[in-house]
Amino acid sequence: MTPDSIGVGGVAPHGEPLAIICGGGSFPAAVAEAVQRQGREPVMFGIRGWADRTVLERYKHDWVALGQAGRLVRVINAHHCREAVFIGTVLRPPLSQIRLDWQTLRLLPRLARLFRGGDDRLLSGIAGLLEEAGLRIVGLQEIAPEVFVPAGVLAGYQPSARDDSDIAQALKVIAALGPFDVGQAAIVADSNVLAVEAAEGTDNMLARVAELRRLRRVAAPPGVGVLVKAPKPGQDRRFDLPAIGPQTVENVAGAGLAGLAVAAGSAIIAEPAAVIAAADRAKLFLVGVDEDAAQ
Amino acid sequence: MTPDSIGVGGVAPHGEPLAIICGGGSFPAAVAEAVQRQGREPVMFGIRGWADRTVLERYKHDWVALGQAGRLVRVINAHHCREAVFIGTVLRPPLSQIRLDWQTLRLLPRLARLFRGGDDRLLSGIAGLLEEAGLRIVGLQEIAPEVFVPAGVLAGYQPSARDDSDIAQALKVIAALGPFDVGQAAIVADSNVLAVEAAEGTDNMLARVAELRRLRRVAAPPGVGVLVKAPKPGQDRRFDLPAIGPQTVENVAGAGLAGLAVAAGSAIIAEPAAVIAAADRAKLFLVGVDEDAAQ
Repeated sequence: MTPDSIGVGGVAPHGEPLAIICGGGSFPAAVAEAVQRQGREPVMFGIRGWADRTVLERYKHDWVALGQAGRLVRVINAHHCREAVFIGTVLRPPLSQIRLDWQTLRLLPRLARLFRGGDDRLLSGIAGLLEEAGLRIVGLQEIAPEVFVPAGVLAGYQPSARDDSDIAQALKVIAALGPFDVGQAAIVADSNVLAVEAAEGTDNMLARVAELRRLRRVAAPPGVGVLVKAPKPGQDRRFDLPAIGPQTVENVAGAGLAGLAVAAGSAIIAEPAAVIAAADRAKLFLVGVDEDAAQ
Repeated sequence: MTPDSIGVGGVAPHGEPLAIICGGGSFPAAVAEAVQRQGREPVMFGIRGWADRTVLERYKHDWVALGQAGRLVRVINAHHCREAVFIGTVLRPPLSQIRLDWQTLRLLPRLARLFRGGDDRLLSGIAGLLEEAGLRIVGLQEIAPEVFVPAGVLAGYQPSARDDSDIAQALKVIAALGPFDVGQAAIVADSNVLAVEAAEGTDNMLARVAELRRLRRVAAPPGVGVLVKAPKPGQDRRFDLPAIGPQTVENVAGAGLAGLAVAAGSAIIAEPAAVIAAADRAKLFLVGVDEDAAQ
């Protein structure tokens, strides 16, 4: 197949298999479905310890451990994929789950540097290794635009002026932390920054705010405050996108917030119908916002 | 007494009583001792729910609830104090502990604005109310310079180059968050920002990192990483200073870090001998660093 046979916009033609490198959560399934709707065959490469076996087994699939970049290239090639997409949660991995193969070992000095960075640099680095092996890493926007959060009110009601001000402040906090490859989320309630996400993940951060509420250490009354998720400025949008799912909504309700705001067009949403139903049930708002509006 | 009788550098003369407005922790006792060493009488005004009764009862004292600015002015005047210093922990107060008096009620619109800000603005606002009533709010540096952390290695050993790099990164994170009146602490391990403090306080943040370690979600091995505490740039240095005590050191050890670095000259240390002994016992370093060196 010559380069000429690559379709418009660089997307491979109908029928060409697409490698989906799968972390945890339900996103890989949503992406696989979107790929099938486009008439392409998804081939799932699950990261051991993170990817969901029940999701992978519905499709052609294989398994790799983190650190097995050489093996990953081989199994992707064996399935005749020339393009790959990353999707799913890969929190900083437990060290016990990293298995180094010989090809990765050769690259160890570089991997060591990657691991010294945050998750974003880790994934960028692995992508770089795959690209050197001739694979094209495509962005999720090209493959499954339907998983991205649109702009506007998705559930509940239009945020109040106070909510809008909290949203803007949280976006500024996330932007200020951009240079540090740290979290993509913050919680602000009535102009107080209650929590900033780093290595712990969004659900842990929300549990912390629920506990602060229980201890009556939050000045804003229940029903005031927002969770905001947005990508870091300058983040490589091909992976580690801010994501929400039904559990996020449940935890926002548990933290006594008014709602959640996510960056439209760059945050992704798992099981949108379930998310919207959960938000409506908990009387929360869910909005897609312009992350640059706060700059 | 005329203004001429005020001593050099604005400090009131020998013998004049000093009001110490006391939050929680052991700092108020250290400050009271320093004031006595200067030949002045400390008068303790404990904030109900925060100040330690056993500390206050060693000195002339009275109690106020947060929000009782009018009563605070009256009791300070009744004890013939013209100067006051703030010291001790006042995390965002449980709402149930705020008792409004009539004078404060008159100021409610302003207090409401204060509460919309973070702790720093809250304390600045209360200080402003006291100053309007004719009191002089003095900085802790004037009264008890011995509670400030000096520069250099205080316990353990000289931090390694990696530690220094982690310290510099954490100082940058704290500086980046300066505009948001958020935490004064961050934890960085081998260039990864593990945690950023907001409303939860330092001990909670350290407990979180201990838990991430237990779950093996920290890439850096045990014994790598630093807790850094430094004031926000532009912070009013008269209150809400970053503070460490023996419990901080215990928790740094529990989080599997290499040590702790605090801003020399602006962070304060409770029970220095106990802190240094705890650090030596846990084989941690404790250093006072120049917070501006990272800018």
